[in-house]
Amino acid sequence: MTEIRTVGLLGGGVIGAGWAARLLLNGVDVVVADKAAGTEAAIAEVMNNARRAYRNLTLCPPGAEGGLTIVQSVEAAAEAADFIQENLPEDQDLKTALLGRASRAARPDVVIASSTSGLRPTALQADITEPGRLVVGHPFNPVYLMPLVEICGGVETSPHVPGRAADFYRSIGLHPLMLKTEIDGFIADRLMEALWREALHMINDDVATAADIDDAIRFGPGLRWAFMGTFLTYRLAGGGAGMRHFLAQFGPALKLPWSKLEAPELTDDLIERLAGQSDDQAAGQSTRSLERLRDDCLVAVMQGLKRHDFGAGRALKQYEEILYERAHQTEMVPDEKIDAPLVLHQSRVAAEWVDYNGHMTESRYLHVFGDGTDALLRFVGIDSAYHVAGGSYYTVETHIMNLAEVSADAPIEVRSHVLGVDDKRLHVLHALHHGTEGTQLATAEQMLVHVDTALGRAAPARPVVRDRLTAIAEAHSVLDIPNNVGRRITMPSAPKGGP
Amino acid sequence: MTEIRTVGLLGGGVIGAGWAARLLLNGVDVVVADKAAGTEAAIAEVMNNARRAYRNLTLCPPGAEGGLTIVQSVEAAAEAADFIQENLPEDQDLKTALLGRASRAARPDVVIASSTSGLRPTALQADITEPGRLVVGHPFNPVYLMPLVEICGGVETSPHVPGRAADFYRSIGLHPLMLKTEIDGFIADRLMEALWREALHMINDDVATAADIDDAIRFGPGLRWAFMGTFLTYRLAGGGAGMRHFLAQFGPALKLPWSKLEAPELTDDLIERLAGQSDDQAAGQSTRSLERLRDDCLVAVMQGLKRHDFGAGRALKQYEEILYERAHQTEMVPDEKIDAPLVLHQSRVAAEWVDYNGHMTESRYLHVFGDGTDALLRFVGIDSAYHVAGGSYYTVETHIMNLAEVSADAPIEVRSHVLGVDDKRLHVLHALHHGTEGTQLATAEQMLVHVDTALGRAAPARPVVRDRLTAIAEAHSVLDIPNNVGRRITMPSAPKGGP
Repeated sequence: MTEIRTVGLLGGGVIGAGWAARLLLNGVDVVVADKAAGTEAAIAEVMNNARRAYRNLTLCPPGAEGGLTIVQSVEAAAEAADFIQENLPEDQDLKTALLGRASRAARPDVVIASSTSGLRPTALQADITEPGRLVVGHPFNPVYLMPLVEICGGVETSPHVPGRAADFYRSIGLHPLMLKTEIDGFIADRLMEALWREALHMINDDVATAADIDDAIRFGPGLRWAFMGTFLTYRLAGGGAGMRHFLAQFGPALKLPWSKLEAPELTDDLIERLAGQSDDQAAGQSTRSLERLRDDCLVAVMQGLKRHDFGAGRALKQYEEILYERAHQTEMVPDEKIDAPLVLHQSRVAAEWVDYNGHMTESRYLHVFGDGTDALLRFVGIDSAYHVAGGSYYTVETHIMNLAEVSADAPIEVRSHVLGVDDKRLHVLHALHHGTEGTQLATAEQMLVHVDTALGRAAPARPVVRDRLTAIAEAHSVLDIPNNVGRRITMPSAPKGGP
Repeated sequence: MTEIRTVGLLGGGVIGAGWAARLLLNGVDVVVADKAAGTEAAIAEVMNNARRAYRNLTLCPPGAEGGLTIVQSVEAAAEAADFIQENLPEDQDLKTALLGRASRAARPDVVIASSTSGLRPTALQADITEPGRLVVGHPFNPVYLMPLVEICGGVETSPHVPGRAADFYRSIGLHPLMLKTEIDGFIADRLMEALWREALHMINDDVATAADIDDAIRFGPGLRWAFMGTFLTYRLAGGGAGMRHFLAQFGPALKLPWSKLEAPELTDDLIERLAGQSDDQAAGQSTRSLERLRDDCLVAVMQGLKRHDFGAGRALKQYEEILYERAHQTEMVPDEKIDAPLVLHQSRVAAEWVDYNGHMTESRYLHVFGDGTDALLRFVGIDSAYHVAGGSYYTVETHIMNLAEVSADAPIEVRSHVLGVDDKRLHVLHALHHGTEGTQLATAEQMLVHVDTALGRAAPARPVVRDRLTAIAEAHSVLDIPNNVGRRITMPSAPKGGP
């Protein structure tokens, strides 16, 4: 099989431009056939989005981009191409005619894929030369990010062509799903259409708005669909007893008017087939372990969305505000307790902080020390009002000693010893411990400087904060100076630079 | 309104136990009426999952849990309750009868909510005293994590009751969706049912398996449903021209056999209503800005799932392996280039690394320096085979100087100066710069120790690595010693411990 260096795109609309972006960012040259005047500008805009998305998607340094050419005829795109992807409007006659023209201009071994959302490949094979090379490769918007591509051959498609298309798609980051049977709408669009048609009925019947319907999805089932789909989700909703139990419980609801779509009869044969496929899908994993995977994924999705303050992420953010306020109300550390290092931050090692060795990764130590500093600053009166008024402490220098490893889920606490305070500076040693009784895991000596954030420069802390910190520093001054204060890094026994 | 300290749960199955977990973790006492022998053990298992999930969900320290009591009658649960939540099987007669008994035992002001997936609240009001207080509060599995709760009153429901239920649900982290019209299946279940029934048809027609269908969702539309639902997603699929354009393009497909559900007629009135609701939903945000939000959320969801190596996260992980391999093949740093600090890691500040001030958060500096160390170690020959064979460098000491702030998306690079090497130790100063020409943002002086990971103790590096590092250290020894090497933290002008 020829290496695919150049892809011919027939049509440069939303889907065509999305293909162009994915291909170009993967170093593949692209020739787009589109007569619309704004094609180049539209693709450039999509490329801007796509470049930005890829910078966030991976830390792998971007490679060289492919080159983009816009041409006026499908023949010009097809002649240059090692692979053709058609992205024309969902009009069977139009697609058939232009696919035919492209096929006559293309080399005979070039695979021709159609992005159709649901037209049958057999119908699209009507007018092309070498029809064995035509296959559907149905992508999803935005094509440069969405991993799914549904691959479906028609009656005349050669047996090796779907696999060739899948190999190419995989090399540019897609996840091919091979359809075993040619059906209208393939799999994903059948599901999307059923859901969308039901939604349109609700709008038509005036029982819900577009926003209500989207909210019902994105705060609810959409979160689970993002990683488990419908059947695995329902298997877990059946509790330990799995899909058979779920069907026993919710099968009767298939007769209720909960959708305008009538369900198939839940025959013994259908129950057996579904239960068997569900068992295959679970592949021997216990319900409990799948539940934990589901929970981990739900948490990860919501935390990811929280960073963008959107959907369920916004809901999580608002919930956390409630939690912190509740924690604040119950937090009562009496003043006389300041005569020992302060334990103001207790937490656990999160699963996502752990590296491939099973230990908390280096940068998370500093993350936890930062949480300790935040807790100390809250303790001495620096709250959000103080920040809004333009006061804050910034860390300027940190010395970390890594002493022991710690695994996911372990309880951890930060003990904070205030070493010194003046108008602008705060000198502290945090010690990270494995729980209240456990070993010392690391220390961080830090120098912080109080800043006026509006002016962007060092400025004295407010007296109330300064006094509170001074009282703590005085109380701590009678304690032994902790280990690891004032260290510098040296390599005494070997001369620098050589053996 | 009385404060809700105790909730009575009628039924302790999957949904009842999920409610119990959410309530207990929010410090609310729970009395569960369930005669099944294993109820207590089943709830304890769900609580284990839920505690684990909450530790991952938020860094807010957990508060005191509520107390759990199991009772044998709905009356015993109802008598003790400030709020009642019914979670019985979807059997209208059973629910009506037990809700009636509970209502007669409860105080008259206590709200009674039903978790029914789709039965109408009016039907459930048939036999209860003070029927005005009955409302549907429909949650989703797992109840302790999923934010959505659909709130729907019946004909007799008092106007203030849905709002009272919503306030309570919000206080325990849920996102209430208020239904304006009482319909079978409410909103979410109508959509879930339509999708599920279409899926069951595909299994019944033997055109796809449960695994195919779930994959079609979770690598495709399910990712978008997780944060935008169906209408906002389609608005963006219409390109800049929005929902009217989308309907012009995909409206005709509503007549195609892409689902067994017939769509409503796309009348002018329906088009106008939907386009208007879609405009309201977009609330003046431009298509381009919504596209970026969509991309950010897609990236965040896939990255979150990558941490759990599942679904689209696994696809992303596999794609990154392809990208890194491709980058590796084109990476050709000639040996003679070692006579200056090595630039082996270039990246950008990720959006999620930025704190509320808009600057890269403290711990991410160390994250980037860690990436710099990894790149240096790869450069001198430490690859995954080396790790598998049990060799690795661990950081034991780090001294960071924070010099300047940096914002999201800024290009950054790490310049690494090797200060010293011996059998087991590696002494390096990394300098973080804002791009190739930009200012110095921070430095990190680090001491690393080579370890035998099987033995868990320091051990000499392999000669090939040691030689490579030594050659670099020798080449760097003729350079000026960089700033910030060998520093210790001091606070010279103020005596420790006070003014």
